Amino acid sequence: MENNRTEVATLGEFGLIQHLTKNFEIHNASTVLGVGDDAAVIDHFGKQTVVTTDLLLEGIHFDLMYTPLKHLGYKSVIVNISDIYAMNAHPTAVTVSVGISNKVSVEALDEFYEGVYAACEKYGVDLIGGDTSSSNKGFVISVTALGEVNTGMFVKRSTAEVGDLICVTGDLGAAFLGLTLMEREKRIYLENPAIQPDLEGQDYIVGRLLKPEARKDIIEFFEASEITPTAMMDISDGLSSEVLHICSQSGLGCRIHEDKLPINDKSRMAAFKFGLDPTVCALNGGEDYELIFTLKQADYDKITLNEQISVVGYMVEAEEGRKFISKGGNTFDITAQGWNAFGK
Amino acid sequence: MENNRTEVATLGEFGLIQHLTKNFEIHNASTVLGVGDDAAVIDHFGKQTVVTTDLLLEGIHFDLMYTPLKHLGYKSVIVNISDIYAMNAHPTAVTVSVGISNKVSVEALDEFYEGVYAACEKYGVDLIGGDTSSSNKGFVISVTALGEVNTGMFVKRSTAEVGDLICVTGDLGAAFLGLTLMEREKRIYLENPAIQPDLEGQDYIVGRLLKPEARKDIIEFFEASEITPTAMMDISDGLSSEVLHICSQSGLGCRIHEDKLPINDKSRMAAFKFGLDPTVCALNGGEDYELIFTLKQADYDKITLNEQISVVGYMVEAEEGRKFISKGGNTFDITAQGWNAFGK
Repeated sequence: MENNRTEVATLGEFGLIQHLTKNFEIHNASTVLGVGDDAAVIDHFGKQTVVTTDLLLEGIHFDLMYTPLKHLGYKSVIVNISDIYAMNAHPTAVTVSVGISNKVSVEALDEFYEGVYAACEKYGVDLIGGDTSSSNKGFVISVTALGEVNTGMFVKRSTAEVGDLICVTGDLGAAFLGLTLMEREKRIYLENPAIQPDLEGQDYIVGRLLKPEARKDIIEFFEASEITPTAMMDISDGLSSEVLHICSQSGLGCRIHEDKLPINDKSRMAAFKFGLDPTVCALNGGEDYELIFTLKQADYDKITLNEQISVVGYMVEAEEGRKFISKGGNTFDITAQGWNAFGK
Repeated sequence: MENNRTEVATLGEFGLIQHLTKNFEIHNASTVLGVGDDAAVIDHFGKQTVVTTDLLLEGIHFDLMYTPLKHLGYKSVIVNISDIYAMNAHPTAVTVSVGISNKVSVEALDEFYEGVYAACEKYGVDLIGGDTSSSNKGFVISVTALGEVNTGMFVKRSTAEVGDLICVTGDLGAAFLGLTLMEREKRIYLENPAIQPDLEGQDYIVGRLLKPEARKDIIEFFEASEITPTAMMDISDGLSSEVLHICSQSGLGCRIHEDKLPINDKSRMAAFKFGLDPTVCALNGGEDYELIFTLKQADYDKITLNEQISVVGYMVEAEEGRKFISKGGNTFDITAQGWNAFGK
């Protein structure tokens, strides 16, 4: 890359946008007009539009020392469309804005957009706009995702009911363990650059951190199985934090059982190696981008055959509190220990 | 404010969003679900959705030394809905994301959102979501605006035709002169903080810089007068830059006449004071957020009585070039001298 470096200033903003978007094809018939005008235009006859947005800042949400730009572009799209799926909707379009410093070349930005395009391609989403700007300090990314849902079929966080099952998809805690590993390897490298990173056998947790996926398959499964969750959100800040959101917005309490938490064997091994409790990683580790949803008990039979869904507890009256029951049978109050972008 | 400072960390991200959005009312019946879930939901039966986004970075797009936070919040919304009007559409909703450093208190952020709310209120737009995060360095703002337009009624940049009149709204160059003034006063203040800023009689150009408005009135006038421009965009980077976009995207040339450029008397006086050519300010100064549009000659009678619209030139074949004709009758090639976020 050092041999083939194009300064962003040589293209200018408009030239840069043309350069970055010239090979992008439109996937959705509803996308009437994409990149290149004041705004994009989308058709939404008889459906509802779902909108979400995320701001990702270097040094807060990602570390370029161990995050390849292509993965960063991919993940920037994934974290947004994950919020669209969490509404029981299908993502259709994204806007991607970036602020970059002088140290970022056109080639580096191309890598970032390769990741953006790969995610758009995989999830059938159109890149319909964005904004590029120079930044005094650090890489800034802002993504907005739009999606569609049949009228009234969207699922909120506030509509869980007493007795509903609490379900999660996939497995939990791996992204946090991947982050722990990368931060450890970074410290070792900074102390002694001659030591090569030791990532052997850690592909799973590193992949979960650097290349997360959104649960499109689960939303398609709901449609095929005629399931409508009573409440749903995605797990970006950790299970504890998210289940408390569903409880407080629905005005209810909950029970979560430790022995039901889905934790990958590779995560357990990594946690053991780092001296961490895998259960704590599953409860409080963020960035897994799995879904948590509540389900009427009558729908239980419909999910039993889906190995990607685990029932981890159930909703109770608010007065019964928000409790975690350990394997040993002890009961603890659930507190939000999740990642807080403003904490120390 | 120093006596009453609340650290953002005491609220946490979710608490902060609740705090910032608690008094906000929904204006549009189409906004089914606003802030507080994974995504917002909007109804769009039989209309087309228009989407635009902008990233605003401290030190690049604004200087907190002379930009009150309330004005910054207001302007952040205006620059986006201006792009929606530039599509001949009506803005309905915005998402506002901010990244803030530790030096920003909750009270300071409240001021910013007061401006956001004031703009939303004035233009009948709903704040439907956003994201808040800490930032290592500086204030980061990302706004996405959504709008509606009757099917097929949106106006692109690429559809101007030979012979069409080129029109601009309001007057040009004032925001650039306001910026020139504020930068000058900032330098004087930094050299000698005892000297108070001299803004006497400069309200107009300062107001154009710090509190721009979007041309809702023009879009309503088009509807009332049954006018559909053949092409349109907003003037954020300067008239020269924008007319070249319309030319290149429409595959045409143009003629712009100096004696037709709308320049406010207060701008002329300020330009004189600073030793600048008011015509150059009007051509190359950005951030006026006026509209430039092209119109069939047959529609000329419909605009003559609107004092907010000036005909400044007309479209020609591409081979005839993109030319500026001075008051003295000299002809110059139009070049984009507008603000370039990547230039030196």
